[in-house]
Amino acid sequence: MLDRQTFKHTTQLRVRNYEVDWQGIVHNGNYLLYCEVGRVDYLKHIGARIDLNSINSESRVVLVRNEIDYLAPAMFDDLLTVCTRVSFIKNSSFAMEGIIERASSRERIVENVAYHVWLDPITKKSKSVPDDMRRLVQSFEGSNCAIEWPSLEI
Amino acid sequence: MLDRQTFKHTTQLRVRNYEVDWQGIVHNGNYLLYCEVGRVDYLKHIGARIDLNSINSESRVVLVRNEIDYLAPAMFDDLLTVCTRVSFIKNSSFAMEGIIERASSRERIVENVAYHVWLDPITKKSKSVPDDMRRLVQSFEGSNCAIEWPSLEI
Amino acid sequence: MLDRQTFKHTTQLRVRNYEVDWQGIVHNGNYLLYCEVGRVDYLKHIGARIDLNSINSESRVVLVRNEIDYLAPAMFDDLLTVCTRVSFIKNSSFAMEGIIERASSRERIVENVAYHVWLDPITKKSKSVPDDMRRLVQSFEGSNCAIEWPSLEI
Amino acid sequence: MLDRQTFKHTTQLRVRNYEVDWQGIVHNGNYLLYCEVGRVDYLKHIGARIDLNSINSESRVVLVRNEIDYLAPAMFDDLLTVCTRVSFIKNSSFAMEGIIERASSRERIVENVAYHVWLDPITKKSKSVPDDMRRLVQSFEGSNCAIEWPSLEI
Repeated sequence: MLDRQTFKHTTQLRVRNYEVDWQGIVHNGNYLLYCEVGRVDYLKHIGARIDLNSINSESRVVLVRNEIDYLAPAMFDDLLTVCTRVSFIKNSSFAMEGIIERASSRERIVENVAYHVWLDPITKKSKSVPDDMRRLVQSFEGSNCAIEWPSLEI
Repeated sequence: MLDRQTFKHTTQLRVRNYEVDWQGIVHNGNYLLYCEVGRVDYLKHIGARIDLNSINSESRVVLVRNEIDYLAPAMFDDLLTVCTRVSFIKNSSFAMEGIIERASSRERIVENVAYHVWLDPITKKSKSVPDDMRRLVQSFEGSNCAIEWPSLEI
Repeated sequence: MLDRQTFKHTTQLRVRNYEVDWQGIVHNGNYLLYCEVGRVDYLKHIGARIDLNSINSESRVVLVRNEIDYLAPAMFDDLLTVCTRVSFIKNSSFAMEGIIERASSRERIVENVAYHVWLDPITKKSKSVPDDMRRLVQSFEGSNCAIEWPSLEI
Repeated sequence: MLDRQTFKHTTQLRVRNYEVDWQGIVHNGNYLLYCEVGRVDYLKHIGARIDLNSINSESRVVLVRNEIDYLAPAMFDDLLTVCTRVSFIKNSSFAMEGIIERASSRERIVENVAYHVWLDPITKKSKSVPDDMRRLVQSFEGSNCAIEWPSLEI
């Protein structure tokens, strides 16, 4: 169970009618998309110039694993709060956690952990998470986030 | 790493142009949908009359967790093979595993484990997986699938 | 060119990252969905208890035609204003118009006209738009909307 | 009513479970996507190296209008035949028509006309459809397609 107290960043979105399946509840595939909305907004908010869906010339962030627990269904027209944090940064990988709550009741809808790896786009080998990414996350998260600083090692 | 040898059921689908993001690769959210296509086809194939997205009057199958590992990207127009199996059935829960391969090269694209629980739609409490579901899966999977038979216990 | 002055109802939504294609602009298929968000919100707002996507026991509203003009692309993170109105109600049909604008600049993104028909769900024949639907629309739209009242004919 | 006899190109796709709404029928937004699958396949088939969703350095094809008539609903697991043709090429614009049929019964599901314009990506002004596009379409369509040849004018 992810600890809601550790999340500082939230964004809100409303369930749209076409996201609802024939049970009248949000189709399971959409929650991953909502969590991605949260991650993209988080990175924009802390000033990280990386794009979770894109390539740039020097490096590429690749999503390597998603874990998602479905705790309660969201319904049409629900306003949802998507909470996002970076939970750790290791040498070449980092994880972002997400919680989606129903805004009205704070009932928890899903929990998500998304694991990313930094790659060299030419060699396809993993490379260190850039120091400015570490700094931006540490500045925002403070002690909430376990950050390894390989570049500080001797 | 899921063992491809244990998968007897496959279905194929082709990546559609609107599923591809601005890197020219399939957006990560679509792979869960492809795995669901595999699960729905599997259940139809073995003759199980349950609907992973729906309610019926007696019971309801709820997806409670998804784990997905992204191993390689699928591209526009790729023909994909979705391999599906039931890996276990416990008292009130079961898991379905999925592998997506590029059909041409058999390169592995993603691995997925989807966990489901059987609920009583009125009381919302978990209830036993029906015996006919166990029988259909055992008949198809044979010894590949770990099936508990609580109803046979004394 | 639809006349923006005739639209009283607006709703807003933000473009989500996964709705953007590899040009960095919203994939054309999403605009129809955004217009539907506007229509569903409009009908809720005026108090009409019809569901544009659903069946109820007495009658069924069927979307029979969509026309959409793409005037300018929406981009990731754009806040959009979706303007919606009912432009006419005939005996068994009605049309809803939509304009999507970029909220910041009021630049027009798309125009949409969606034509609907009221059907008897058993016989599949068209039937009159219910009088309470006519009343709700007239009350909201006033003289903006051309409403035929067949039930008042002798 | 589009004339099925004039369509030489077909492609097939199967309705996926997550494309179906809570009536058990395909959500209206998906038919436009299916028609786009047909158009992309058509252009690949005739050898046109244009990408309806993309930019290249010299020119850009922009979708400016879609008209779609919904004639009958498609259901989960239906195999659909998407028929595609170019109906006209004018100086800087062209139209592509689509018919979606249920493969089993040839029942017509939707009709679509999609209008495109060729733009100069720098000046944003319309420019002539390239002659090689005209040649490829004429070679495939023969006399079915009304093609203006502005570049042959004196």
